[in-house]
Amino acid sequence: MKIVALAGGVGGAKLAHGLAQILPPEELTVIVNTGDDFEHLGLYICPDLDTVCYTLAGLANPETGWGRVGESWNTIANVEKLGGPAWFRLGDQDIATHLERTRRLKEGQPLSQVIRDFCRAWDVRHTVLPMCDSPVRTMVDTDEGELAFQEYFVHRRCEPIVKGFRFDGAEAAEPAPGVREALESADAIVFCPSNPWVSIDPILRVVKKINKPVVAVSPIIGGKTVKGPAAKMYTELGIEPSALAVAMHYRTILTGFVLDNADLKYEEEIKALQVKTLVTDTLMNQLTDRARLATDVLHFIGSY
Amino acid sequence: MKIVALAGGVGGAKLAHGLAQILPPEELTVIVNTGDDFEHLGLYICPDLDTVCYTLAGLANPETGWGRVGESWNTIANVEKLGGPAWFRLGDQDIATHLERTRRLKEGQPLSQVIRDFCRAWDVRHTVLPMCDSPVRTMVDTDEGELAFQEYFVHRRCEPIVKGFRFDGAEAAEPAPGVREALESADAIVFCPSNPWVSIDPILRVVKKINKPVVAVSPIIGGKTVKGPAAKMYTELGIEPSALAVAMHYRTILTGFVLDNADLKYEEEIKALQVKTLVTDTLMNQLTDRARLATDVLHFIGSY
Repeated sequence: MKIVALAGGVGGAKLAHGLAQILPPEELTVIVNTGDDFEHLGLYICPDLDTVCYTLAGLANPETGWGRVGESWNTIANVEKLGGPAWFRLGDQDIATHLERTRRLKEGQPLSQVIRDFCRAWDVRHTVLPMCDSPVRTMVDTDEGELAFQEYFVHRRCEPIVKGFRFDGAEAAEPAPGVREALESADAIVFCPSNPWVSIDPILRVVKKINKPVVAVSPIIGGKTVKGPAAKMYTELGIEPSALAVAMHYRTILTGFVLDNADLKYEEEIKALQVKTLVTDTLMNQLTDRARLATDVLHFIGSY
Repeated sequence: MKIVALAGGVGGAKLAHGLAQILPPEELTVIVNTGDDFEHLGLYICPDLDTVCYTLAGLANPETGWGRVGESWNTIANVEKLGGPAWFRLGDQDIATHLERTRRLKEGQPLSQVIRDFCRAWDVRHTVLPMCDSPVRTMVDTDEGELAFQEYFVHRRCEPIVKGFRFDGAEAAEPAPGVREALESADAIVFCPSNPWVSIDPILRVVKKINKPVVAVSPIIGGKTVKGPAAKMYTELGIEPSALAVAMHYRTILTGFVLDNADLKYEEEIKALQVKTLVTDTLMNQLTDRARLATDVLHFIGSY
């Protein structure tokens, strides 16, 4: 069974890791949001791609979900000492990724090739693709004006009230080499439990069309997100955050939906959207939860 | 007594450090070679400036003379793991200097302002100036063709045979703000024991004219250099490397020359160049040697 998973950062990386533990390399492609990418300190940084790759490589920091395990912070501490910007916490090992990526991009290598080479160096055997090679920038419209995503997300800690989103460059972007082929040969597409607004939507904007069964895993459990601002965004946009809201969000392309036991009450309403449902334990607090949820999702897909 | 010291890397930094231990901040300006500067991994790196600043700040690695004390190497190890260039060994703390400098230069700050701010952050109270704000690139003509300085120096470990030097951009370069003023108000100029060909010559090429007494300290002791390729360069250019050769090198602007006890035999020949001489112990192996040699040099200057 060939699966394509669409993923943002931490939550997406966890389910992708679970799927990678079950599916052989040729049966899983992870397409990752690059709308969060930005240039900072002269470095080209791809937070979601790096989180997915580090997680699949077993190099991710298990405490934070992002960044590297066993990380040191000598560079950023010294940047701060020199009065430079230190609000985006870059670890010493992580900076190597950004330095070498920036160097290769400036040499003219496409991002997808850089990621392919990095995955080889890190022994990531499943295919990880950026959604596109050209820059797409998620812009957050807020009550304080439009903010670049990392400015909103990290620097301003998601405090400004969200009014909408714009994906600069998404309409003109070509999907990265391999993205269309993966989508066309897939048996099903899995939307990982990532932020619908700023992780999955930018990917959908770039790939434009999906003609395969789509199973989404709700990133909202009991009205809350495990991590990140998805629930806060729904509220600020006038929508009650819930598994139902996520299913509604995706309703035009959704064939199956995975929601947490805590959200059982929404199952009937979601079924009424002509969407099959799986109610299970979707929290991935422990490493073993990842393969367990992935197994549930794959069985669910196999069942229809 | 106002002193301007011209310096390259390690040897120059040591004497500058000695002078800084004796002279108050307003009486010492160190003008540093930037011909070794280069861009690498997207970083703007100034090896001589950083060595001088780290040394004056007490942050230099006492083992190597360059780089930072208590350094870690997590970034470069990971760049290497990704197949990136690792021949120029950048430490994690050191990378902060390059990242923040590159960021500021890209913002449009002149190098001299960046160095002034860095010196403040590092509590370096004496004035350190780059020779100029515009890029000058030392190019080494060799039997294998022309090489950029760091390519010759670090990557090729000074192995190619030297035929000459070119300082790209030096003729057009304006001395950095403060350089002319420091030279005009100085009582004497000290050429630190740095490489005459690739550390002091580029500075002289940029400042063009010096109308003050010049005292040079020989970087060649007993026909050898403590560090670096100066002796090898003299040999390859058909000149026997010696304190005499260094005095000859500078003879048109030299008023005083400091040579090591080991080179006593050259004293008369150097005096014959109408140059006053001081024969003393010029090796700076120990920290205390720096202030001792600086004291000798200052007494020598004061004596004529």
